[in-house]
Amino acid sequence: MRYNPAMATSRATRGNFFEDFETGQLLRHAIPRTVTEGDVSLYIALTGDRRPMHCSAEVARSLGYARERVHDLLVFHMVFGKTVGDVSLNAVANLGYADLRFGRPVYPGDTLRAESEVLGRRETSSGTSGIVWVRTTGLNQRDEVVLSYARWVMVQKRGSAPTGAKDSPPLPAEVPASELHFHPELEPQMLSEVAWAFGGRARWDDYVVGERIDHHGGMTIEESDHMTATRLYQNTALVHFDQHAMAGSRFGRRLMYGGHVISVAYAAAMNGFENGLGMLAWNGGQHVSPTFAGDTLYAWTEITDKQPLTNNDSVGALRCRLVAAKNVDPVKEGVQRRIKDAEGKDAYDPRVVLDLDFWLAMPRKLASDE
Amino acid sequence: MRYNPAMATSRATRGNFFEDFETGQLLRHAIPRTVTEGDVSLYIALTGDRRPMHCSAEVARSLGYARERVHDLLVFHMVFGKTVGDVSLNAVANLGYADLRFGRPVYPGDTLRAESEVLGRRETSSGTSGIVWVRTTGLNQRDEVVLSYARWVMVQKRGSAPTGAKDSPPLPAEVPASELHFHPELEPQMLSEVAWAFGGRARWDDYVVGERIDHHGGMTIEESDHMTATRLYQNTALVHFDQHAMAGSRFGRRLMYGGHVISVAYAAAMNGFENGLGMLAWNGGQHVSPTFAGDTLYAWTEITDKQPLTNNDSVGALRCRLVAAKNVDPVKEGVQRRIKDAEGKDAYDPRVVLDLDFWLAMPRKLASDE
Amino acid sequence: MRYNPAMATSRATRGNFFEDFETGQLLRHAIPRTVTEGDVSLYIALTGDRRPMHCSAEVARSLGYARERVHDLLVFHMVFGKTVGDVSLNAVANLGYADLRFGRPVYPGDTLRAESEVLGRRETSSGTSGIVWVRTTGLNQRDEVVLSYARWVMVQKRGSAPTGAKDSPPLPAEVPASELHFHPELEPQMLSEVAWAFGGRARWDDYVVGERIDHHGGMTIEESDHMTATRLYQNTALVHFDQHAMAGSRFGRRLMYGGHVISVAYAAAMNGFENGLGMLAWNGGQHVSPTFAGDTLYAWTEITDKQPLTNNDSVGALRCRLVAAKNVDPVKEGVQRRIKDAEGKDAYDPRVVLDLDFWLAMPRKLASDE
Repeated sequence: MRYNPAMATSRATRGNFFEDFETGQLLRHAIPRTVTEGDVSLYIALTGDRRPMHCSAEVARSLGYARERVHDLLVFHMVFGKTVGDVSLNAVANLGYADLRFGRPVYPGDTLRAESEVLGRRETSSGTSGIVWVRTTGLNQRDEVVLSYARWVMVQKRGSAPTGAKDSPPLPAEVPASELHFHPELEPQMLSEVAWAFGGRARWDDYVVGERIDHHGGMTIEESDHMTATRLYQNTALVHFDQHAMAGSRFGRRLMYGGHVISVAYAAAMNGFENGLGMLAWNGGQHVSPTFAGDTLYAWTEITDKQPLTNNDSVGALRCRLVAAKNVDPVKEGVQRRIKDAEGKDAYDPRVVLDLDFWLAMPRKLASDE
Repeated sequence: MRYNPAMATSRATRGNFFEDFETGQLLRHAIPRTVTEGDVSLYIALTGDRRPMHCSAEVARSLGYARERVHDLLVFHMVFGKTVGDVSLNAVANLGYADLRFGRPVYPGDTLRAESEVLGRRETSSGTSGIVWVRTTGLNQRDEVVLSYARWVMVQKRGSAPTGAKDSPPLPAEVPASELHFHPELEPQMLSEVAWAFGGRARWDDYVVGERIDHHGGMTIEESDHMTATRLYQNTALVHFDQHAMAGSRFGRRLMYGGHVISVAYAAAMNGFENGLGMLAWNGGQHVSPTFAGDTLYAWTEITDKQPLTNNDSVGALRCRLVAAKNVDPVKEGVQRRIKDAEGKDAYDPRVVLDLDFWLAMPRKLASDE
Repeated sequence: MRYNPAMATSRATRGNFFEDFETGQLLRHAIPRTVTEGDVSLYIALTGDRRPMHCSAEVARSLGYARERVHDLLVFHMVFGKTVGDVSLNAVANLGYADLRFGRPVYPGDTLRAESEVLGRRETSSGTSGIVWVRTTGLNQRDEVVLSYARWVMVQKRGSAPTGAKDSPPLPAEVPASELHFHPELEPQMLSEVAWAFGGRARWDDYVVGERIDHHGGMTIEESDHMTATRLYQNTALVHFDQHAMAGSRFGRRLMYGGHVISVAYAAAMNGFENGLGMLAWNGGQHVSPTFAGDTLYAWTEITDKQPLTNNDSVGALRCRLVAAKNVDPVKEGVQRRIKDAEGKDAYDPRVVLDLDFWLAMPRKLASDE
């Protein structure tokens, strides 16, 4: 039978619009994914990350893990990617993250899936969109939680009828240090033996609240780089891929997946935090401005707090503000996270693209180290 | 001893020319390849494919497979790539495919090799080239057939002497539905249990012959994307890689490997065919127009037939016409596969780049699903 | 506590300057790396390499290896990458290599680390930089040597005070053939059985000293290609990544990692050396000119010597001069390694970018082959 053009159907999905969300609704996201050694290599190739916990089976084993752990941010991107088709395919803007906690370590061979619960909704005054809050949980094949976070996005409305939705949820401003966990208790001797593998001098005790560490050197991102990363995470947001459509947008070009900016900035943050053992939690995060192919990303970290861990004597938590700026070298040209704008108000420097507030696990100096 | 410029030799191969092929000849292609988890990850990163059978070991196992299957098209590209050095290094055009059948599933760790038999040859009226038909077979390390297909290419002649070659072979217009096989009989209960992982609603019974499904959203391809994919497949056709030489061609630039277009279009076709279980066979396929870096690819599928499988009650076959067009959004701007050209003749729309006629395996509704 | 801009610290490292090196000093480089199947796939995808020893577990096993060996150059790049942070982060130029020897085969799953000993230093007459010689050793998780080589780089000085450093070490002009080793003794029967997998005709006996083999076809490199390769190797040299900074350099753009040029040229050199079994040693190597994204690389090989191996009757060594030129097709346009420059002096053709002098392992014709 011949194809009949009149029979074009809408069987393909176009994602959910603001009206489709209901507070309390549970979204079970499709496409579970087995994370493999291939994903691990690609993550390194796309970001330049060098953390030995994630690239050396020997280092990871000597610290008490089964083998090299899948990078915290690779876990985040894989989980996040699964949610896009249900949550943010029609997003106008990805507004923020809160209360993100990493759970069980992920190893190559584990299979990840994701669920999201709608926490609340609020229609915006424009009447054409609304904000949706979700809590997303990433789980492994044993249904153990590997990641959990709240996120809010501005989503297009399907129609113009007011919805009256107005139940935005309360969200914590931070993950309290008392709730942070780092699993293996590190043996002082072991830590000293593998110190060479990390290449850094400073431990938790050395960092000072108020300190800013510039990570030196920029990374210019090409279209192919960010699209390959975003495809790896099976993130289907069209804004990252479709130049033909984006040529007509207000940007005139493809938008970079904000998560790639986080990864590139965090890879740079190896310099100055060599002994870091991974992210424990995010207090919050914001993609301050969009990033495009051709932009060069620089990063620095501001230390805003430091706390011991209640369940682990060998590791402490540094509260870090990871900031990325584009096309300005913070060392040579100078740039601050917050400035006074033309009207004298406190605002982000317009060249800042990322502001991520997270807790970093860092080994402590131990008696035997002296 | 010093190098003597007069001793430049022709030890390096330049591939076969039309005169080098003999009907009945068997070409045993070099470079067997162990397909790994790395290849699987790269396939996802380069195409954005999300079919859970190929990216989740858990889903694949629950459906009766040993683990995640290597993607049908990754198998195709790996096998195809091996043939290029012998068959199409001097190709003027890759004209078409017929009677392609997938055989044994391929798993990471399997080693693939390829053989081709020359089915026939016909010199073209120009006298400078001829068409060569081959049947290529892909085999695993146990010599089991994983893929078999006929392909014809226009190949340059080495000289100007007429060859008189004129034995073009008959080729079937389709793979009859009665010869299609899908291996595991799916248990209704299992299928229901993993339905969430596919994320789709429709099954074989829901699709209508004559229906067209637009897959929404374009993918813009960069030089690095298509070259990386083509290198991954160890496809050595120079037209994809050598800008210095291609600057002098009639295109003025590198040609994209047509197989990458198939992969990108098929990845898009997840949207609307979420429950698809893989390609069973290709009836035919044609690269209608060339694609270049910077082009944005859109895809739709026309359903032209549907048939039950004789060996499997739980799966049916949908005959699909996967069409890719470039730089025109089929949903927003409208484009048809066939149009009337300036002279009123039936022709491809000039923006169409791919027309692939294949059988897709799709689970059926089972009594227990109601 | 709020961040205090006055507290910007220099905790992040900026690498070593000329004054920081001491002859005899041992640098134990950080970031050991487990090489995986993912790295192997990416190496193929980035370079197009097709050597069956490195991509087919079946071929490698039939020749006496445990499984596919990690590519010699992937081992080199991984080891080299680790040294950059300590040795060449402040390099002005990477001047050369000598006495490079491959040791134990590397398999996916092995973990590589690197050490360097400073062999000598010489301040240059400019007073702003100096040359540092190091010997780098790559080791696996059993502390077996997988690679060892000497390298010298011109490194910036931190200050202007003269150092008087002037102890440049002697370096051998070649690795004597008598010190080359190839491990498995190949069984003639086995070699004949897998000959099809290599796809070549010539063996050691067929090559002629003085012969030049052009490898046909160019590869155009994109920014994304060389940066992805360089990130995969965790090579942190800023000149490859930071367009914002490099715009102000004398090149005006990012420099391609010279190792990527070696890999692309060597991948091309499969054509004409199909039966090659791997690199045994480098006598020397030089990055003659810089390469940039957009350049098209062509390669040829000049055979300058051939020697039997003292420890292996089935394999011989070919001394090869692998030359890469950019944006000129050696076959169609003609280019020689050395020319007479405007003043009549012997010099490199300005389009030559690489000159690598290495020993290649090549199977010999055996009695049973006749």
